[in-house]
Amino acid sequence: MKLDLSLYLVLDPVMCGGFDATIKLTQQVLDAGVTVIQLRAPQWKKRDWLRLSQQILPMSREARVPFLINDHIDIALACDADGVHLGQGDLPLAMARQLLGPDKILGLSISKAHHLQGDDCLLADYLGIGPVFPTGTKQDADPAIGLATFRDWMTQIHQPVVAIGGIGASETSDIIRAGADGIAVVSAICAVADPALATRTLGQLIHEARP
Amino acid sequence: MKLDLSLYLVLDPVMCGGFDATIKLTQQVLDAGVTVIQLRAPQWKKRDWLRLSQQILPMSREARVPFLINDHIDIALACDADGVHLGQGDLPLAMARQLLGPDKILGLSISKAHHLQGDDCLLADYLGIGPVFPTGTKQDADPAIGLATFRDWMTQIHQPVVAIGGIGASETSDIIRAGADGIAVVSAICAVADPALATRTLGQLIHEARP
Repeated sequence: MKLDLSLYLVLDPVMCGGFDATIKLTQQVLDAGVTVIQLRAPQWKKRDWLRLSQQILPMSREARVPFLINDHIDIALACDADGVHLGQGDLPLAMARQLLGPDKILGLSISKAHHLQGDDCLLADYLGIGPVFPTGTKQDADPAIGLATFRDWMTQIHQPVVAIGGIGASETSDIIRAGADGIAVVSAICAVADPALATRTLGQLIHEARP
Repeated sequence: MKLDLSLYLVLDPVMCGGFDATIKLTQQVLDAGVTVIQLRAPQWKKRDWLRLSQQILPMSREARVPFLINDHIDIALACDADGVHLGQGDLPLAMARQLLGPDKILGLSISKAHHLQGDDCLLADYLGIGPVFPTGTKQDADPAIGLATFRDWMTQIHQPVVAIGGIGASETSDIIRAGADGIAVVSAICAVADPALATRTLGQLIHEARP
């Protein structure tokens, strides 16, 4: 499945208001133009991740939008997701590739300069870099790297990059002009009154910021 | 690998004092007679689970003791563990069987009467029943069922059973006399001054309590 990182939604079902609200929001934002969905539900049990994923996958496939699972390769295998997004402490990417096969998408979080030198970096299909700005969403997030460091790292990277962390409408243009392929958001879509409008607004800003 | 549930250690590497201390304790208690080891490290990242598992597996295989992974089928696949122990909220056992293949051991936690009626129950190679007594080890444990309820459930079950939760030397005889195949312990081995002695003592009590 083609990977367009432009508007990458990290879907937090608790922030969305629970199971049914998450399904509803997912259809709305697929219609409004998100280009990747990653499920991240740290407070949930795996059986609930699976049940939600099995509901989302027909919708995301219909929209030709990749659906990824945060951290848990076993859930991705169980629901036949399109890939996983892994952190530096998760299973090594070589192992993920072996378990998931050659066709699944592997993303990797990068939050420190030395991560860019790791073997895992070379095996990732894309890098998720951040937090660029301070975020209240991820409890155990590393310190924000800031826009200047993000710009600097972008000059060293030749893989597709999505920026994450504290990104909303005000930050989008700077991130895209720094060379990112896209922005990843959680609260900017999951925690707003009109997720479809937020999606269209961000999509428009991304479009306008591109050279 | 033969499954002897007699003295089932749930290995908590934080309680053991960290990575190296856990390796040392593991060799001691394998020599002293534990019959199953399950790794459970909720505070750890998966990459550390994998690294520890890769160190333990040669030791447990040498001792012909099954080594199981709590919850995470992906870690079990990555290190080729002998099986997994799953809770009611983890991936369904039918899915676990599909991912792990026919030869791996699947254990299932049972903490409420209605769990005994679930489909998953029929697919498990053994049941872990408890907490029988109150425990301080597992933060999100269900209420203790008590010895009378445990005895009652044992009359309804025809699968191998290991009892868990607040079990030490004082409780072992009652549990075995109630018909359990074995006891599962965490702190009674991981949090004592002499884990090998504790293991031998519990092993002796189990032996003496059997008909």
